[in-house]
Amino acid sequence: MTKKPIPCMATETGNMLKPWRAGIDTYQEPVVYMRRECPICRSEGFTTQARVQLTAGNRSIVATLSVVDSAWLAENVAGLSESAWQALAPQAGQLVAVTHAPPLDSLSHVRAKVYGHSLGDSEYGAVISDIAAGRYSDLQIAAFITACAGDRMKLEETVSLTKAMIAVGDRIDWGRSVVVDKHCVGGLPGNRTTLIAVPIVAACGLTMPKTSSRAITSPAGTVDTMEVLAPVDLDVARMRRVVERTGGCIVWGGAVRLSPADDILIRVERPLDLDSEGQLVASVLSKKAAAGSTHVLIDVPVGATAKVRTTQAAASLAFRLRNVGSAIGLQVSLRVTDGEQPVGRGIGPALEARDVLAVLKGLPEAPADLRERSLRVAADILEMGGATLVGDGLGLANDVLSDGRAWAKFQEICAEQGGMRIPPTARFTRTIEALASGRITRVDNRLLARTAKLAGAPTAPGAGIDVHVRLGDRVDVGQALFTLHAEAPGELEYALEFVRSRPPIFQISESA
Amino acid sequence: MTKKPIPCMATETGNMLKPWRAGIDTYQEPVVYMRRECPICRSEGFTTQARVQLTAGNRSIVATLSVVDSAWLAENVAGLSESAWQALAPQAGQLVAVTHAPPLDSLSHVRAKVYGHSLGDSEYGAVISDIAAGRYSDLQIAAFITACAGDRMKLEETVSLTKAMIAVGDRIDWGRSVVVDKHCVGGLPGNRTTLIAVPIVAACGLTMPKTSSRAITSPAGTVDTMEVLAPVDLDVARMRRVVERTGGCIVWGGAVRLSPADDILIRVERPLDLDSEGQLVASVLSKKAAAGSTHVLIDVPVGATAKVRTTQAAASLAFRLRNVGSAIGLQVSLRVTDGEQPVGRGIGPALEARDVLAVLKGLPEAPADLRERSLRVAADILEMGGATLVGDGLGLANDVLSDGRAWAKFQEICAEQGGMRIPPTARFTRTIEALASGRITRVDNRLLARTAKLAGAPTAPGAGIDVHVRLGDRVDVGQALFTLHAEAPGELEYALEFVRSRPPIFQISESA
Repeated sequence: MTKKPIPCMATETGNMLKPWRAGIDTYQEPVVYMRRECPICRSEGFTTQARVQLTAGNRSIVATLSVVDSAWLAENVAGLSESAWQALAPQAGQLVAVTHAPPLDSLSHVRAKVYGHSLGDSEYGAVISDIAAGRYSDLQIAAFITACAGDRMKLEETVSLTKAMIAVGDRIDWGRSVVVDKHCVGGLPGNRTTLIAVPIVAACGLTMPKTSSRAITSPAGTVDTMEVLAPVDLDVARMRRVVERTGGCIVWGGAVRLSPADDILIRVERPLDLDSEGQLVASVLSKKAAAGSTHVLIDVPVGATAKVRTTQAAASLAFRLRNVGSAIGLQVSLRVTDGEQPVGRGIGPALEARDVLAVLKGLPEAPADLRERSLRVAADILEMGGATLVGDGLGLANDVLSDGRAWAKFQEICAEQGGMRIPPTARFTRTIEALASGRITRVDNRLLARTAKLAGAPTAPGAGIDVHVRLGDRVDVGQALFTLHAEAPGELEYALEFVRSRPPIFQISESA
Repeated sequence: MTKKPIPCMATETGNMLKPWRAGIDTYQEPVVYMRRECPICRSEGFTTQARVQLTAGNRSIVATLSVVDSAWLAENVAGLSESAWQALAPQAGQLVAVTHAPPLDSLSHVRAKVYGHSLGDSEYGAVISDIAAGRYSDLQIAAFITACAGDRMKLEETVSLTKAMIAVGDRIDWGRSVVVDKHCVGGLPGNRTTLIAVPIVAACGLTMPKTSSRAITSPAGTVDTMEVLAPVDLDVARMRRVVERTGGCIVWGGAVRLSPADDILIRVERPLDLDSEGQLVASVLSKKAAAGSTHVLIDVPVGATAKVRTTQAAASLAFRLRNVGSAIGLQVSLRVTDGEQPVGRGIGPALEARDVLAVLKGLPEAPADLRERSLRVAADILEMGGATLVGDGLGLANDVLSDGRAWAKFQEICAEQGGMRIPPTARFTRTIEALASGRITRVDNRLLARTAKLAGAPTAPGAGIDVHVRLGDRVDVGQALFTLHAEAPGELEYALEFVRSRPPIFQISESA
């Protein structure tokens, strides 16, 4: 049998469509909309959910196809979701070639992981480089995240994953032997010590280029809170300028794009509300390494309803963090802190920012616990970075905060990041009162965080919860326990309904 | 503090939009498209990927929101994806209320499973009933599937999952003490014994109401092949009529909606290309129980590149199938068969149907292996169902096939299902030739299946592969090994490229 020429090749010539900006927000997953009757769907046999490659000039992305049977989309266009439009960035007049996406061989490693096998450097490298290149659909990423969740990654696997995540991003070189950093494992609402510790540490002459993520499963991440006070979307060049001028910064790691794979993983983790020890360690340490840090302090709040619930879990996490850190050349110190109740009073970006400002300005209403925790974090970093002798950190930190140097440094950092802002306030509020008299014996941090999210935090920066009581306080019937803040009435109602239908967030023991 | 009235309630009155059929095929996940500037997005704080509840009259569904920033969508409408439109089915003039989806408490069970905990009856019940009600997004379903994949489900968990899947569907009562059924675990291209065994068994007087799924990870499922010969989308009433008149049927389980949860799980499993022993067992047995079967034969082909690769894996699967079967009142028999190479010659719906017809009609070109396997399956079922003494099944089956009774019964079944059809043929073909002389020593069934899928099977029913050689055959350089069939030139090219870039599907040992 002789080889016949293929009747019609799947080349650029036959597969061009006019790109059209459909303006559909698909939450970063690139999607292309094409008419079922368009010549390409017909000749290529494309159906919905096909993974297709879009090429415009020398840019190429992989997108998920949604087939359309309606005249709002013309037959000769490729409708691009907003993320596909941004990523492909077609020039005026440029056509888009639509072809089959190349087979994704690294999926076999994901499958192996799902089936309980361990993966090595090359497997994690292949998966992460495909994910960073946008070759995975959100469904495929969800499978990878789930397969690695819980305690399903060995220590060596976490090292491999961390290395793979570092390899696909940029890495900043500060040209200094000591660059300090910190991270809080989270799960404790209102624990915004970073915004206070960075200016203290920078005011003492250390270099602390802090990049943070947005909230994954919490009502506010560090940059969500920082963003209501100053711009956080700085690129590497601007971040470098801020740090060179002030010694510190608090910016969004996603804009710096130090860990592009992590940013993609996080966008899928968020709706799944899943955390994984291995991925957490890889996510944190890959970003620290990429940011050029040499010494990292990790704050691990432990409490019955915090993210880390037991000292055993904290020890397991600490072990993994230290060992993965040393495998990639980072010195990691850990501090286990009390995680039984929220820190400060506000939960949600703007409400937390208000507490931070009160501490920095030394206002009388400043939450004492937030001040205390921030000083301890700053002290550890000062000692770890050699700015003071071990044992003298707390005194130095206290001086720098009390005499206004930290507040001056914070304003300097905000100005360099693009100008200080006034936090928004939410229009709709509702106060929840005690239904009994007694003593507050327990706080459910998880319900508290979930309620704040239902009220709109962190997407609505003014939304969240203002907590009026603390563990051990005596309250009377009708006394205010907390106030819900929302920017939209529907969200206030939704959060209220949730509060009413769940067990009490604050447990009041009447006998006490 | 006194309680103020909520400024604007999230009730139906304030949240109505005109439904608009956007005609977007989102592969069954209901999606609603709304303008970012529409009053509901603004008042409710809805952003992309929010899970929202849509209510029209007394029908209510949960959908995923995609926010749109473009004028093709009017501000006062809710654009519905095709699946959302079908599920909500708004009447003419009816408005749609858009509210926050109720919190999904069963997700905490999925999270527990991800973290390695075992779940019980009530947890699987809650998850499956939420999935069947459409309350899970595809991402959340992907996490559930992955968390249960591999060997992560205990036997009792599989029982719980199976019961939960039966509970959310209908269950047919045939009013007979013996209703036989069969299932093949798959992974062996071309293994279409069902289409031959059903008419043999029905011709012998047993009742065999066969419901099958479409292909999950293979180039053709039983109903994909049946569909090129007769309609398979029958509802329960029509299926009952067919079985009462002929004794058998071969229909799509998804149309009968015996296992609505399974249909949803499968739509997400497919793009993930993941199989799980626990979910496989629950999927198979829940459908058998719902179909009213009492005795089920399971065919497990074992081979190095089949779905089940070792006799150990087959034994583990057999153990689980038998035990879960007995826990839900089903008698399960197993037959382990040779899975080293494809059965018959065709791979893909129409090419497999051609082989089936050749066996039923007793044509000289009928593949002997397909005939032989089908007879053995039919013999087992006849003996299991008491239509003949143990040991006499094969003789009876052979008689019924050879004298044309099976062919007559098959035509009768096709006619009752809606009329027999002629299988399509693919327009584009290309034959792959041997690059060396020697003996065929190995067949990679996985590569073969993947190639057939890339050529378009099963979506393009005429597409697939025609295999010209078998294990042990001697071939010469240039001799035809197999022919690719495609309905679209792009798919032919894509499959060809895949074949060229991968190791040979047929291993030729030159020394042999």
